[in-house]
Amino acid sequence: MNVTVGRLTRHYRTVAFDARKNAVRLIDQRLLPHEFRIVATLHFKETARAIHEMTVRGAGAIGATAAYGLAQGVRAFRGRDLERFSRHVDSVYQMLKAARPTAVDPVNAMNEVRSQMRQGTTVAEQQALALTAAEEFANDDVRHCEAIGRQGGPLIQEGMRILTHCNAGWLAFVDVGTATAPLYAAQEEGRKFHVFCDETRPRSQGATLTAWELAQQGIAHEIIADNAAGHLMQRGEIDLVIVGSDRTLGRTGEVTNKIGTYTKAVLAERHNIPFYVAIPLSTIDWELSSGRDIPIEERDQSEVLGAWGTVVPARYRRSGFRLGRRVYVRVANPSSGARNPGFDVTPAELITGLITPVGIFKPKELWVNRCKLGYRE
Amino acid sequence: MNVTVGRLTRHYRTVAFDARKNAVRLIDQRLLPHEFRIVATLHFKETARAIHEMTVRGAGAIGATAAYGLAQGVRAFRGRDLERFSRHVDSVYQMLKAARPTAVDPVNAMNEVRSQMRQGTTVAEQQALALTAAEEFANDDVRHCEAIGRQGGPLIQEGMRILTHCNAGWLAFVDVGTATAPLYAAQEEGRKFHVFCDETRPRSQGATLTAWELAQQGIAHEIIADNAAGHLMQRGEIDLVIVGSDRTLGRTGEVTNKIGTYTKAVLAERHNIPFYVAIPLSTIDWELSSGRDIPIEERDQSEVLGAWGTVVPARYRRSGFRLGRRVYVRVANPSSGARNPGFDVTPAELITGLITPVGIFKPKELWVNRCKLGYRE
Repeated sequence: MNVTVGRLTRHYRTVAFDARKNAVRLIDQRLLPHEFRIVATLHFKETARAIHEMTVRGAGAIGATAAYGLAQGVRAFRGRDLERFSRHVDSVYQMLKAARPTAVDPVNAMNEVRSQMRQGTTVAEQQALALTAAEEFANDDVRHCEAIGRQGGPLIQEGMRILTHCNAGWLAFVDVGTATAPLYAAQEEGRKFHVFCDETRPRSQGATLTAWELAQQGIAHEIIADNAAGHLMQRGEIDLVIVGSDRTLGRTGEVTNKIGTYTKAVLAERHNIPFYVAIPLSTIDWELSSGRDIPIEERDQSEVLGAWGTVVPARYRRSGFRLGRRVYVRVANPSSGARNPGFDVTPAELITGLITPVGIFKPKELWVNRCKLGYRE
Repeated sequence: MNVTVGRLTRHYRTVAFDARKNAVRLIDQRLLPHEFRIVATLHFKETARAIHEMTVRGAGAIGATAAYGLAQGVRAFRGRDLERFSRHVDSVYQMLKAARPTAVDPVNAMNEVRSQMRQGTTVAEQQALALTAAEEFANDDVRHCEAIGRQGGPLIQEGMRILTHCNAGWLAFVDVGTATAPLYAAQEEGRKFHVFCDETRPRSQGATLTAWELAQQGIAHEIIADNAAGHLMQRGEIDLVIVGSDRTLGRTGEVTNKIGTYTKAVLAERHNIPFYVAIPLSTIDWELSSGRDIPIEERDQSEVLGAWGTVVPARYRRSGFRLGRRVYVRVANPSSGARNPGFDVTPAELITGLITPVGIFKPKELWVNRCKLGYRE
């Protein structure tokens, strides 16, 4: 998507590859929204560290980063010995996998690259195929998101007020995003609308990443406290809700997404407001048969007990703070602890439709349409 | 309630009067939870400033502060001329009233003091009566909250997990509080229970004030993001909700309270969890006949766009920060704006019961019991 730095507006992907320098180029998401900076990792170990330290985050984005990281490591190999090469590929793969051990996207992405590589018979051929496969993976991610945009775009009518939660935007993918894809598609067709971004405590991805994205794309929006959506719905100020999904159960249509999503779905149902979830096919789980079986990650207390931001009054800026650098402040009572579930599960009956690249489905229709949706026995 | 400073535990009221020094003693709530400090205002103008700058906040607390401030100003008068005295009383009254122009509690409290004063015939008599009336107002506030505790205490059973929102605790009143009164009453009777404090963005009164109060009183509690309550209810981890109220409509039973209260009520209904509201009689509005007529204050955007806290890493502390002093950090994207409604309205059908000093009522029963509840034609 487009980013404006100074007076220059340019198209950026969240993740890209510089073949000449054998470098992975990433938007440093830890500095956003206060600073926009591209970092280039010149070695696969640096790329692994960028995944580990969350320079890059979001399902599609870390998948593509791992794919590029694997190609980068593979291309750095010198020699023609296929056996030594194979051991080298394994070690690159393992290091990138270990950078975010619970995530499934990097593993799927690297498996795809490795399977393509096997069509080559020499080291040089396999190196070339690795890069082609990584580029193909990234391009597929973009096409996938664009298809979600085409399917969901018509839902966004002129003048609508749309609520989003967290960030399933282009920063979480290679480009376009999932929950944001219908917005960008509607904008491209010239429609005007207004987006309310839930702040999304405790990590505030709505107030930071989604708001930054929408600002860059010139889409009218306002940030609201997570507490405010119910009131706005009650007063008739929200027409539609769109969120993303971390895991959708193909057998039941239940959606796991950022904590607070379930609450918004309950509120939307009470007010008869359509509640849509944009889902990439890669996040459909065809195995589990109940949302109760989904383990909910309990994250660090410090996220709830404080906040990250930049210090504002000038007198503090003078005392050693770098402008745009984020600091952590403790907000809560120092002697209190916190509970911090990271995700929640929204049942199928609260979901109006699931926006996929191949169509919009009722949650209960996923299983019937499983072949179309990429299910493999 | 009790506050522990170092190894010393002492009883404090939020607001008190030192007759010897003619000073109002206030807990400085702007420094909490990071620093506990009592400030003494020696002149009614200082007392007015403390109300204006939110050194003291909360309906009952600012009422008592204004009552004491009026007595303080009245007692500072030198002379016997009743006419000059009367003009002086008026000017003190006006200045204290102007300190928080939209609040009704300071006005009610000062009217009470003034009406008592009129029973005196000399300046000296009226000065003495002013102090007696202010003390009586503060003591009434405490008795009122204690009565809410006696009514609501039995709701809190052994082992229960209770959700609260915002702060309607003793810091908002002279002592005991309203939403917290049943908790303190149940604790006094020896029952053990667990409280989840909603953070209550954007001003975080739950994470700061309520958590601090409960910690001082030794009540087990954890802070949660406002997004997490729905998930905890879904997993069966919340048994009861108690909140306070800024304005309750006597004719309909609708409750106006801090933004996010409505959302918790909707969630509680879905999960069949009892939802109680503790209401001081002074907050019942017998005039309005619909919650839609309640004007909802739109507060400053900066509250949503950032947070107040203390800077944690030692390296920042060294560069000029005072430990325990709060700073404001900008969390959100710098080019985005925010909507910030301060309150919302919860309809009667979502409320299990209203805990008043004279009994627990269904919302629709307020009007029938209006005489008992202090209604005057």
